[in-house]
Amino acid sequence: MRLLLIGFGNVGKALLRLLTDDRNPLSRSGSKPQIVAVLDRKGGAIDPAGLDSAELLRTDESEGTVAAALEVGQFGLSPLAAIKEVEAEIVLELAPTNPATGEPGISHVETALRNGRDVITTNKGPPALAMRPLQRLARLNNVEFRFSGTVGGGTPILEFIKRTAKVDRVLSLRAILNGTTNYILAQMYDFETSMEEALKQVQRLGYAEKDSSLDILGIDPALKLTIIANYALDREIAPNEFHLTGINNVTLEEVTRYKREGRKTKLICSIDKEATVSPQPIEVSQPICVDGSLNLVQLKTEYTREMTLVGPGAGGYPTATAILNDLLAIEKERHAKDTLTAEITRIRAH
Amino acid sequence: MRLLLIGFGNVGKALLRLLTDDRNPLSRSGSKPQIVAVLDRKGGAIDPAGLDSAELLRTDESEGTVAAALEVGQFGLSPLAAIKEVEAEIVLELAPTNPATGEPGISHVETALRNGRDVITTNKGPPALAMRPLQRLARLNNVEFRFSGTVGGGTPILEFIKRTAKVDRVLSLRAILNGTTNYILAQMYDFETSMEEALKQVQRLGYAEKDSSLDILGIDPALKLTIIANYALDREIAPNEFHLTGINNVTLEEVTRYKREGRKTKLICSIDKEATVSPQPIEVSQPICVDGSLNLVQLKTEYTREMTLVGPGAGGYPTATAILNDLLAIEKERHAKDTLTAEITRIRAH
Repeated sequence: MRLLLIGFGNVGKALLRLLTDDRNPLSRSGSKPQIVAVLDRKGGAIDPAGLDSAELLRTDESEGTVAAALEVGQFGLSPLAAIKEVEAEIVLELAPTNPATGEPGISHVETALRNGRDVITTNKGPPALAMRPLQRLARLNNVEFRFSGTVGGGTPILEFIKRTAKVDRVLSLRAILNGTTNYILAQMYDFETSMEEALKQVQRLGYAEKDSSLDILGIDPALKLTIIANYALDREIAPNEFHLTGINNVTLEEVTRYKREGRKTKLICSIDKEATVSPQPIEVSQPICVDGSLNLVQLKTEYTREMTLVGPGAGGYPTATAILNDLLAIEKERHAKDTLTAEITRIRAH
Repeated sequence: MRLLLIGFGNVGKALLRLLTDDRNPLSRSGSKPQIVAVLDRKGGAIDPAGLDSAELLRTDESEGTVAAALEVGQFGLSPLAAIKEVEAEIVLELAPTNPATGEPGISHVETALRNGRDVITTNKGPPALAMRPLQRLARLNNVEFRFSGTVGGGTPILEFIKRTAKVDRVLSLRAILNGTTNYILAQMYDFETSMEEALKQVQRLGYAEKDSSLDILGIDPALKLTIIANYALDREIAPNEFHLTGINNVTLEEVTRYKREGRKTKLICSIDKEATVSPQPIEVSQPICVDGSLNLVQLKTEYTREMTLVGPGAGGYPTATAILNDLLAIEKERHAKDTLTAEITRIRAH
């Protein structure tokens, strides 16, 4: 399998380190994916025979771009041109995307699918804003469109919900899907820190994006909840059908008042008849009251009643394990297709 | 798909109700499994054209056995003879099994696999005591051997661990895998109830078997931990290699002494270098300190660090959803095999 990486941030770098770990699951499965091209904001490196991961990481570290990695490999292709022209079976779409438009992610994914590439993205934009058309496009082109890492980082939230919805009836779902706001609200609760101060802290710790409005306004968790609803619960809900309230109007006074009543303010995502993202005071004894930057999903179902999954919701390495999961699924699909193709070739040759 | 049910207790009855629910996932997938035979302790009912679920449930309710369900269906076959002679693609092995010997479960599973039947069991005995030989036998006979319901009831503990171990490195695992002992220990902690009294309560509630020594001595969770180790973590650990301590020597005095120190006694299952089941005092603030009859598994991994899954660990309906999950997996396998067979038939006919 030859991989083309669009974007080379924390997740892409973690993935490269994970793939060079010789105990990684793809090595165990006998498959050896080759990175044939990497594009970052400043340029790209390409080698049809496979780029050296260690050299890519070193060059990025010293030069701030992979473009200088291999003289032979420097090229001036745009991401869209690279997706069309680089010979690679799988496109990893890991570049920053505008969450309002889903661009350039949606265009990258669309172009890759149309050109017969399997696609893995960790961008919420494409699956949140264009899941159904992109899924149809993937089917038409007989390729895979996967996005495990868009919700929960390495915590398999999407798979857990989808599996449960297959064999049981999910009556309602409550979740905490944004580590940044969960951390901010916990700081306000624990240390009576103002929101501004807590936000600065979380940015210093590297959890939050420089532009944290996506978190604070609840847009990031709303996009994740859209992906859960449409992919794992097979519902048809667009992001603009959500009841969305961010934490921007939560005051320290309100947090401390609830605290005296034994409740913590949490940014709760929920789906029952409606889909809602809003700050809510939760009894501290409730298992949904997780702290730190953890994510959590709690399902109420008809037969198994209640189940909860908790884990870190982001981070380069955890998200890279979600990409590995998608790579393994694609490898399995390819294997099944190859078997069929071989059979058909034999029939033709007969 | 024609199903043969060996055993008709809570799980079997819940499964029948679930399969007749027209929103169940198998109806959604277009497949309609037929129950062609059911055996209970007193006899059996058989109809190659498919038994009526409602009538089976009514007869069992009024007569205490399905044997009276259909006059035409009464038959005197032993389970082993039924497994060989009844025309069914899938055997559901749901009868009680001796956990020391794994019998009669292992013989039922072995005979079914040798006769080309797919097997789903909710008995811990066969996968805990004979996983590798039964898996090999299934492969040799080109059939499936599945046992999702043996650990965690409807909570997908095995799948969660197996998926994580595939894409990450599981460094250690801690779990609570026995609802009965967890409930008993919680009663002792909360109400200073003696173990004898708490045991009677849990038996009245129907959580515990009449013979509760499997729970109290830790044998039930040790079997589950064996299945986790061998199936989901791909380790080779036999049940007798465990360090096993039950809760039989836990005293109320000890529980209340730890309580004053802010710790709850829990029967903890763990795997790191070694596999251990033993009662341990856990800080009450730890997320592993779940109450009631819940099960829990907590993984520490190299890349995603820590994840926790919590849910009910037993019960007829939850366990029936695990069987549904296995039926869906078998259906998928059968579909893939049928496609291949059709191709080969075409080649032959050419």
